[in-house]
Amino acid sequence: MPKFEVCFSPVLFSLIEVNEPTIIVVIDVLRATTSFCTAFDFGVEAIVPLDSIEKAIEYKNNGFIVAAERDGLKPDFADLSNSAFDFMNTELTGKTIYYTTTNGTKAIKLGENKGTVAIGSFLNLPALANWLTEQGKNVIVLCAGWKDNYCIEDTLCAGALADLVISQGKFLIESDAALASLLLWNSNSKDPETLITRSAHYLRLKQLGFENVLKYSLQIGKSHTVPVLIEGKLLDLNKSKKQNI
Amino acid sequence: MPKFEVCFSPVLFSLIEVNEPTIIVVIDVLRATTSFCTAFDFGVEAIVPLDSIEKAIEYKNNGFIVAAERDGLKPDFADLSNSAFDFMNTELTGKTIYYTTTNGTKAIKLGENKGTVAIGSFLNLPALANWLTEQGKNVIVLCAGWKDNYCIEDTLCAGALADLVISQGKFLIESDAALASLLLWNSNSKDPETLITRSAHYLRLKQLGFENVLKYSLQIGKSHTVPVLIEGKLLDLNKSKKQNI
Repeated sequence: MPKFEVCFSPVLFSLIEVNEPTIIVVIDVLRATTSFCTAFDFGVEAIVPLDSIEKAIEYKNNGFIVAAERDGLKPDFADLSNSAFDFMNTELTGKTIYYTTTNGTKAIKLGENKGTVAIGSFLNLPALANWLTEQGKNVIVLCAGWKDNYCIEDTLCAGALADLVISQGKFLIESDAALASLLLWNSNSKDPETLITRSAHYLRLKQLGFENVLKYSLQIGKSHTVPVLIEGKLLDLNKSKKQNI
Repeated sequence: MPKFEVCFSPVLFSLIEVNEPTIIVVIDVLRATTSFCTAFDFGVEAIVPLDSIEKAIEYKNNGFIVAAERDGLKPDFADLSNSAFDFMNTELTGKTIYYTTTNGTKAIKLGENKGTVAIGSFLNLPALANWLTEQGKNVIVLCAGWKDNYCIEDTLCAGALADLVISQGKFLIESDAALASLLLWNSNSKDPETLITRSAHYLRLKQLGFENVLKYSLQIGKSHTVPVLIEGKLLDLNKSKKQNI
């Protein structure tokens, strides 16, 4: 039976040995992976994760659409911020977006070296859980965290995903991190919002005036996207009908 | 008000900035820090943590008493293993023990660079909580983990300590890791044993035949020791009557 593993920080990811085909689910609830799902819901064709501001500036200078965030804020040169609300725009339909963030895109780049990267958020949890179950491969959830630190909102989302996939009896949970994520979700599933409002990253976003993204981010099942990284681009598998990788 | 912080792995410890006087509480429930408390209960005078097997061999060759563990097992040259049961020996009264383990002593060495190191286990939780409250300094609990990986038993103990110190209203909990530890403890405080029997490290010890240490390790308040690292040696503050550092 495939294993379901959780990694609390990009710094801990190098400790995990990957010997079999594995899907790396990158989660950055506040806000990158929530925004990716929203972008696909609004018809974006592809998202290209970039791991530096320099690369993002280069793409911008070459006429591409760029989304960027550092320390919670949009750099001046970028077209779009890291907020899901920026992607609720039908003018983006069919477009490719070049995207860099403090934590989320870094985690994607890291995951790319160990397996197939998929994107998780509360929005697309049921769709993602179904797809993971169909694939039958080992899963490692890589919580993007904040500057490599443990984040409670990503852990909660990892736990909610664990809860969905193990309820179908198709995955083994062996690691302490996966077990702790599941327990955190189980004891807070009725009101994840209250817990997240106590998290360091929510308080950071609140200070910047971005707290309205939380309620939106917690809508489990709002999105049916399954964004997967294929040849350096995130594509929505549900849209491309290319369900198996 | 001083802060109470938890660090889930030695790998994450470098991310924490320490600018004020801080006490680093090293926790390695299975088994090093439980054994340290037991050793002091049985009259050991001092424990000198060593960060390598080579150093331990050198001390052994020079006639000192050496406790050692690698991958759960006692190397042949050592006098004592990492099991608390090895220290229930009145012949050790007044003795100094040179000690190296896979995770616990490594964490102590790391903590030494950032503040005053104290030792925590379920056994000495109330004594430690009282002492920390008296000191009024910032606290970082450093979970030793297993080869830098997150461990649920250390997290539970960190959460139990958080529960004790915040109930007196003397510490602020701001970090997500501290909050998650506290929540894990709160939702498992009635039966921590059942949860720990699902942990990876317990299962590892069980395979080696050492599972009997768990029940012993969970006896909150059995020990009144407050082991603190002073000039490279762990001493029991309760014994030396040197209550303030």
